[in-house]
Amino acid sequence: MDSLVNSLADRFGSRLITAPSARAQYAQSEGHHAHQTPSLVVQPATVEEVQLLVQRAAEDHWSIVAYGAGTSLEGNAATTHADSLCIDFSRMNRIIEVSAADLLCVVEPGVTREQLNEDIRATGLFFPVDPGANASLGGMISTRASGTTTVRYGSMRENILGLKMVTADGSLVLTGTRARKSASGYDLTHLFTGSEGTLGLIVEASLRLHGQPDKILAATWDFGSVEGAVDTVIATIQSGVPIARMELLDEAAIRACNRQSALRLPEKPMLFLEFHGSEASVADQLSLVRLFGEGNGGGQLQFATATEDRNTLWKARHQALWAAKNMVPGAVAWITDVCVPISQLSDAIIRAKTAIEASGLFAPILGHVGDGNFHIFFILRTDDTASWDKARIINEAVIDQALSVGGTCTGEHGIGLGKRLAMQREHGADSVATMRRIKDALDPTGLFNPGKIFLDRL
Amino acid sequence: MDSLVNSLADRFGSRLITAPSARAQYAQSEGHHAHQTPSLVVQPATVEEVQLLVQRAAEDHWSIVAYGAGTSLEGNAATTHADSLCIDFSRMNRIIEVSAADLLCVVEPGVTREQLNEDIRATGLFFPVDPGANASLGGMISTRASGTTTVRYGSMRENILGLKMVTADGSLVLTGTRARKSASGYDLTHLFTGSEGTLGLIVEASLRLHGQPDKILAATWDFGSVEGAVDTVIATIQSGVPIARMELLDEAAIRACNRQSALRLPEKPMLFLEFHGSEASVADQLSLVRLFGEGNGGGQLQFATATEDRNTLWKARHQALWAAKNMVPGAVAWITDVCVPISQLSDAIIRAKTAIEASGLFAPILGHVGDGNFHIFFILRTDDTASWDKARIINEAVIDQALSVGGTCTGEHGIGLGKRLAMQREHGADSVATMRRIKDALDPTGLFNPGKIFLDRL
Repeated sequence: MDSLVNSLADRFGSRLITAPSARAQYAQSEGHHAHQTPSLVVQPATVEEVQLLVQRAAEDHWSIVAYGAGTSLEGNAATTHADSLCIDFSRMNRIIEVSAADLLCVVEPGVTREQLNEDIRATGLFFPVDPGANASLGGMISTRASGTTTVRYGSMRENILGLKMVTADGSLVLTGTRARKSASGYDLTHLFTGSEGTLGLIVEASLRLHGQPDKILAATWDFGSVEGAVDTVIATIQSGVPIARMELLDEAAIRACNRQSALRLPEKPMLFLEFHGSEASVADQLSLVRLFGEGNGGGQLQFATATEDRNTLWKARHQALWAAKNMVPGAVAWITDVCVPISQLSDAIIRAKTAIEASGLFAPILGHVGDGNFHIFFILRTDDTASWDKARIINEAVIDQALSVGGTCTGEHGIGLGKRLAMQREHGADSVATMRRIKDALDPTGLFNPGKIFLDRL
Repeated sequence: MDSLVNSLADRFGSRLITAPSARAQYAQSEGHHAHQTPSLVVQPATVEEVQLLVQRAAEDHWSIVAYGAGTSLEGNAATTHADSLCIDFSRMNRIIEVSAADLLCVVEPGVTREQLNEDIRATGLFFPVDPGANASLGGMISTRASGTTTVRYGSMRENILGLKMVTADGSLVLTGTRARKSASGYDLTHLFTGSEGTLGLIVEASLRLHGQPDKILAATWDFGSVEGAVDTVIATIQSGVPIARMELLDEAAIRACNRQSALRLPEKPMLFLEFHGSEASVADQLSLVRLFGEGNGGGQLQFATATEDRNTLWKARHQALWAAKNMVPGAVAWITDVCVPISQLSDAIIRAKTAIEASGLFAPILGHVGDGNFHIFFILRTDDTASWDKARIINEAVIDQALSVGGTCTGEHGIGLGKRLAMQREHGADSVATMRRIKDALDPTGLFNPGKIFLDRL
């Protein structure tokens, strides 16, 4: 370690972090996985500095873990190996370009989604991908993140145009273009998107922007049952209504949100909705969705027309994780993330809910249900091993059920540490072997984020 | 060759094609590249037969070229090497599943896009990607194809959910899921999409379907100048109008279409438009686009409201290549394919048009201009070497100009044989080296489609 520290000290100064208390914060995340405190943290400010770090780490046989805003949920940026250099991208947070004419921006990886949207608000554009947490864009690319608006605007996959990557030999690989489509060579952009820092380091990204809609209408809607709410979602998606947000919160989630955010929502399964478009288009969309909901036991639609009310609503949704945690003092959250074909959503959620009720666990269900994606928030005391075991059993059953109907073990959180076995069940040995061949070809010495996505070899 | 023929004869019978006249048809394509006649063609009917062919070819050190409908334009499926087995997928043309509930279908690679759309019409769904030619879906995946509706519905990239691939060791690799999104492992689906048969053979694909719109309104619109037409397109895209089709045809293209399809369109630069949506949404979209066009010298919008008129219109657009060829008896077409950021489109097309006019070549310009993608159809007699040289010079200039503003050398036709040098200029050496590492990792002996995408090593 002395060799690495000595060679970096002059260049990085106070951006080379060695003090234990400062390093310890990098062992935190919003997930339930145990992290080690990295032995060394460094905060590069330029592409050249990232290249230097890759080169020095390779020479000294250190591995590299990229760290963004620390909001990932599957230990995706956790330090798990000794001799592992944590590269904190928070100082690479410049918005390099915003082109209203081409509906795109170019950012450094440490820019957060809220930072970007605040910066571009006056242009009439916005960046739609909204995972709730104020994640870094580099982290969102790395986990192929999505969120509340993905049902309309797509995930990071649909909103990325190109990347600048530092690869294992320290070279700079450019992918994609500023054009809206291309058939030129292998799609490295989408290979790197979702590769969780295991193939290289993102040092720049070009992202698609969208025009702010003329009209935004948000609403909450209570249902007599989770099934009625989900069947409303299924009908909406099957009819092709271009709804902008369609979120499910079950009664346990609503109870937590009411307490956390001082709301007075009816403590029933609810949909939080948002419509984007012209006045006429929003009216069209609403009339269809209303029809579906009324046929499925929907109660009164409550509109949040004022911007402030709308913000309160989505803030409550985004704080649902904290709200749920705060229901059980000292507890941590373990969050599942399956995504199923839309026709299977009702069955999948009902099964999960039945299992949770039988277990006696406190585990609200929330979901980006328009995508077929839902989360169980298991709220668990760290020492309550019996409850952890129950959660494990439910988690495995929920994943197996999703896989049995052609779904995925993770809609948006990534594999990280937590889904490595599930990924093998999902894709099969030959598919995972193909991924491993790519990993070995691009990172032959295992420099980047060891132990993530793939189980370590025995 | 005898060894290979003997080992396959019993299994494949008349599906093993050895007769020179029958093999010669596989040397045809709609592009301008010279193809060799493959020494051997085989038509597998099942996944197992494809695996057997891969295994046998590998054992006998033959390479494999996958062949779909023969509509590719850059020699993507051309036989260029001796000891090369041509696998014709036309008998693997089953539509395995159509799920209206999940808005998806599962198809074999030899299914053509017209076959799929005829098959599913009664479900109220359609598959949108429309390159004009009645290409096979396997071929469209392989070249990351797009077309007239990509401005609204995306290219193959956005409409593919998963693949079943036979890889170089004969194993079956499954990618993707039936869910609308996933963050599970490397995005092999998008790595294989656009890899032009160089990484493996597609034996099955899951594709997204879309609901047929309530209302479809098509129209033609003449402009005083190409610039006025293109500026109308730019304003439409920048305003986020969800237009379904927005095609440019310059006056030379219109002249050819009039002659081929017995139309009476004004021989001026024209836009062919189509709007999809509810009655109200279509009216909204139209009023905005009308405003943009009127400010840019647009003439009279001519609506094609009857289905028959609409079909006549798009059939004429799709036959434009033949129409242009037929203007010069005995000529072939060489088609360019750059795609630029939308703000650069007007400049790029004007430069191309100026160069064409100065050259004296007959070279209509057409384009999926809503995507920033346009084509020059150079119509050239094979023996007119001076004109070929002029076309080469213009092509290089058009590509360099596109690259200089962040565009791509190919929006939808792929690299094949024709864009290999341009691809290196576009991505840079480190990026192409990364692609090559992936190729070498997944196809270490160079079994699949040698000489495509990458220049052969010296």
